Amino acid sequence: MKQVIVITGASSGFGALAARALAHAGHTVYASMRETTGRNAPQVAAVQQYAAEHAVDLRTVELDVASEASCEAGIQEIIAAHGRLDVIIHNAGHMSFGPAEAFTPEQFAQLYDINVLSTQRVNRAALPQLRKQGRGLVIWVSSSSARGGTPPYLSPYFAAKAAMDSLAVSYASELSRWGIETSIIVPGAFTKGTHHFAHSGSPSDKARAAEYDQGPYAGLPEQSLKGLASLEPADADVSAVADAIVHVVDTPFGKRPFRTHIDPSQDGCEIVNGVADRVRAEMFRRIGLEDLLHPRELVQSAS
Amino acid sequence: MKQVIVITGASSGFGALAARALAHAGHTVYASMRETTGRNAPQVAAVQQYAAEHAVDLRTVELDVASEASCEAGIQEIIAAHGRLDVIIHNAGHMSFGPAEAFTPEQFAQLYDINVLSTQRVNRAALPQLRKQGRGLVIWVSSSSARGGTPPYLSPYFAAKAAMDSLAVSYASELSRWGIETSIIVPGAFTKGTHHFAHSGSPSDKARAAEYDQGPYAGLPEQSLKGLASLEPADADVSAVADAIVHVVDTPFGKRPFRTHIDPSQDGCEIVNGVADRVRAEMFRRIGLEDLLHPRELVQSAS
Repeated sequence: MKQVIVITGASSGFGALAARALAHAGHTVYASMRETTGRNAPQVAAVQQYAAEHAVDLRTVELDVASEASCEAGIQEIIAAHGRLDVIIHNAGHMSFGPAEAFTPEQFAQLYDINVLSTQRVNRAALPQLRKQGRGLVIWVSSSSARGGTPPYLSPYFAAKAAMDSLAVSYASELSRWGIETSIIVPGAFTKGTHHFAHSGSPSDKARAAEYDQGPYAGLPEQSLKGLASLEPADADVSAVADAIVHVVDTPFGKRPFRTHIDPSQDGCEIVNGVADRVRAEMFRRIGLEDLLHPRELVQSAS
Repeated sequence: MKQVIVITGASSGFGALAARALAHAGHTVYASMRETTGRNAPQVAAVQQYAAEHAVDLRTVELDVASEASCEAGIQEIIAAHGRLDVIIHNAGHMSFGPAEAFTPEQFAQLYDINVLSTQRVNRAALPQLRKQGRGLVIWVSSSSARGGTPPYLSPYFAAKAAMDSLAVSYASELSRWGIETSIIVPGAFTKGTHHFAHSGSPSDKARAAEYDQGPYAGLPEQSLKGLASLEPADADVSAVADAIVHVVDTPFGKRPFRTHIDPSQDGCEIVNGVADRVRAEMFRRIGLEDLLHPRELVQSAS
């Protein structure tokens, strides 16, 4: 069934790949990004060219996840064009690298904003439509770091992704009775194939960072990143994340996996999440809220 | 060994109990709180009376965890008085209750500020002193919700606590080479014995909240809270959290537990954290950073 889909942070990385893969699968896909007429104008042109060349329904929409007004306008533009919105994909995110102590509280707040508050803005703009439909799907691109091995120097990002994963889990039970399904994609560390690591932010407090770099943590950044890369099989391919998203979308309503792990390095997150999701289900049963674990069938499924 | 200790959010709840218990154990304890000459003046008087009656070294210090300047001033006051600071206890926190969609992004940001950025402000004020000493202890009061069963309607709090737990884990490996030990206290849900639930915040977007309350989620809040309370044994006692903190402080350096769970309801967090901490250790071994798992012995231990 052809779905109307919006994906955030789709100017590059997982988002750009997933948008193209979903369009190839036959869906109407809005690759959302900020600055569509500015910095990202080349990405908009690339999307248009790609759509024309491959005869797929891939579009862009201006949506700055840092702005409530922009999220509202972007989502309304999609709903106005199609009268519906079937799938939201929370993919926008940003990373930073350096000793925790050298990041200012403001930098921690910024990473929380881009990785977590972003999803809240998009949800508040889009969920009323999905609830009205009595049918929808929310996909969250989480991170294996939320519960797997966590090397040093990624604290503002790891903290934000742990929060984002937690928020996904909370929303899952609060949307199920509205007929909205939740599916969490959990990528491991892909040090190649996206700009995620290369474009990461650095600590504002350079003096504090220097105390680490010239003290007992000298050489740590190189060793940590080299270590992370060494865990990655040579054939690790970021397109596996896009493929997983397509698979989730194309699985019938009510049958979609709660989580899909794509972690070539096997950092352990899949094991931890398996246990965590199990104890979560156990608690819902113990307190008589087991129905929240699965989305309600409120409308006739075409599939 | 007598330690100089600061604990945040000590005007009530776990913080007030832990401050008293630590003072009884023979330590110099600063119960930190905001508005010591305003709203919390009665708490300051109560601390002074308690200290005099029991002949223990329990004091208060003005420290608003929401303000960088206040954190800096409060920590410097302690260091000026004693020439050292041995233990930081991150306990300040706040809860909210309601459907995720009805909280504004600003409310999510506020909960992140009080529960997470608070610890960053205190760490940046205090850690230079602990690093200079080559010895110290940071205790984090996390929450079983970070990885255990998570009932609906606590999303901004759960997201923040998941982030706080993640930050604790990141700091652990970034402080160990400085001779600073990390210990995480993981309380389960205590619905009685503190004001945590009673004082929780509510969603600003009342219209959105009403759609849930008058729709498919009618009656959910009562059922969820009743369910949570039903999991709690009748003899669940919040003082167990304070006792656990004293035990951690009084355990010799280098031998302290990475985590201590105090979860009478057994929501499953202890099992999940056990697996998570194990895969974390495994990754550090795989990438040659195993030494980060334990604090370095940089100074002669008296104990």
